[in-house]
Amino acid sequence: MKLNERGLLVVISGPSGVGKGTVRKALFDMPKHNLTYSVSMTTRKMRPGEVNGVDYYFVSKEEFEQKIKDGKLLEHAEFVGNYYGTPLDKVNEQLDKGNEVVLEIEVEGAQQVKNKMPDCVSIFIVPPGKEALYERLRARGTESEEIIQQRIEKANREFKKAYLYDYIVVNDEVSNAADRIMAIIRAEHAKTERSIYKYMELIGEKEN
Amino acid sequence: MKLNERGLLVVISGPSGVGKGTVRKALFDMPKHNLTYSVSMTTRKMRPGEVNGVDYYFVSKEEFEQKIKDGKLLEHAEFVGNYYGTPLDKVNEQLDKGNEVVLEIEVEGAQQVKNKMPDCVSIFIVPPGKEALYERLRARGTESEEIIQQRIEKANREFKKAYLYDYIVVNDEVSNAADRIMAIIRAEHAKTERSIYKYMELIGEKEN
Repeated sequence: MKLNERGLLVVISGPSGVGKGTVRKALFDMPKHNLTYSVSMTTRKMRPGEVNGVDYYFVSKEEFEQKIKDGKLLEHAEFVGNYYGTPLDKVNEQLDKGNEVVLEIEVEGAQQVKNKMPDCVSIFIVPPGKEALYERLRARGTESEEIIQQRIEKANREFKKAYLYDYIVVNDEVSNAADRIMAIIRAEHAKTERSIYKYMELIGEKEN
Repeated sequence: MKLNERGLLVVISGPSGVGKGTVRKALFDMPKHNLTYSVSMTTRKMRPGEVNGVDYYFVSKEEFEQKIKDGKLLEHAEFVGNYYGTPLDKVNEQLDKGNEVVLEIEVEGAQQVKNKMPDCVSIFIVPPGKEALYERLRARGTESEEIIQQRIEKANREFKKAYLYDYIVVNDEVSNAADRIMAIIRAEHAKTERSIYKYMELIGEKEN
């Protein structure tokens, strides 16, 4: 029996190249969960095969900028001339249904979310060592040494942001990391500040 | 990989009759754990078959009172003329070894522990409803209605202490409650305030 019935907003972030996407995938592959993705909003053009509301919510630049102004995005960023962001109302809809909403985002976006929704659960995924990450960044593709160096510098700046998160999870083995995140979600539901209201109801101490 | 290597002090408490002992037993019966009990100290006489340092640490009244004075007990209480308490040094020994120390104690003792060791993990076990607990208190034995009423009143006072704990866990099914406590322990190890030191070491940011 779970005292907190509202879903949790779970923010998964970490330095570039740490394997956030793989961990998120392992999480969703676990049995018996009520995790959901949040569909992002973007101003980039719809590509063949993409479905509005499934892959993204496709909107105009004007619409997007209005959403920013109205505070209706949990976080947003610009990337190669297009906006990307997370619509707040869609997230709240899922949370109200009792689903956990998992956002896998970059360090900068994660901080925006924490500021906007302080009761989210923020998790920083880290490699078992710095060298392991550098190797992954190098092995990624055919990029020039300059681009690789830029990535390493970015990762080094991101490494220092761990203290801003609620939890630090080592991605030594993907399944370990996913297990630990599931444990965090279960534990967070049992936290007193999330449970006390329903508990008071349960024991009949709540004023009606 | 666990970033926090020190064990956790896990305080399990809850209103009288909620089944703290049964939950604790289920917890220790789970596979692969590093949970340990803490052996209490008492001034009561050793009974046949009891072993000093296993069942209790048996000490004199003078010794016990000196320990209280010196702040060497994590909590203590008097019960039918005898003292009972938890020696701080033994708990720390286990925590330093990386074992979790589980204390299953009454509400009053739990608050003493929280004050003395604020980084403990305190868990309040609650029944799925007030009536369920009353029934258990009634069914317990052959006590008079007066004693049962006293117990119910005590439980009612204890019910209101939930807000003092870090977590609230419903004992609807013993195995569910034990699972949730295990999740809490895993999650607590990943908490940033417990992990950041080792993490800084890992990424080579710690000053030596």
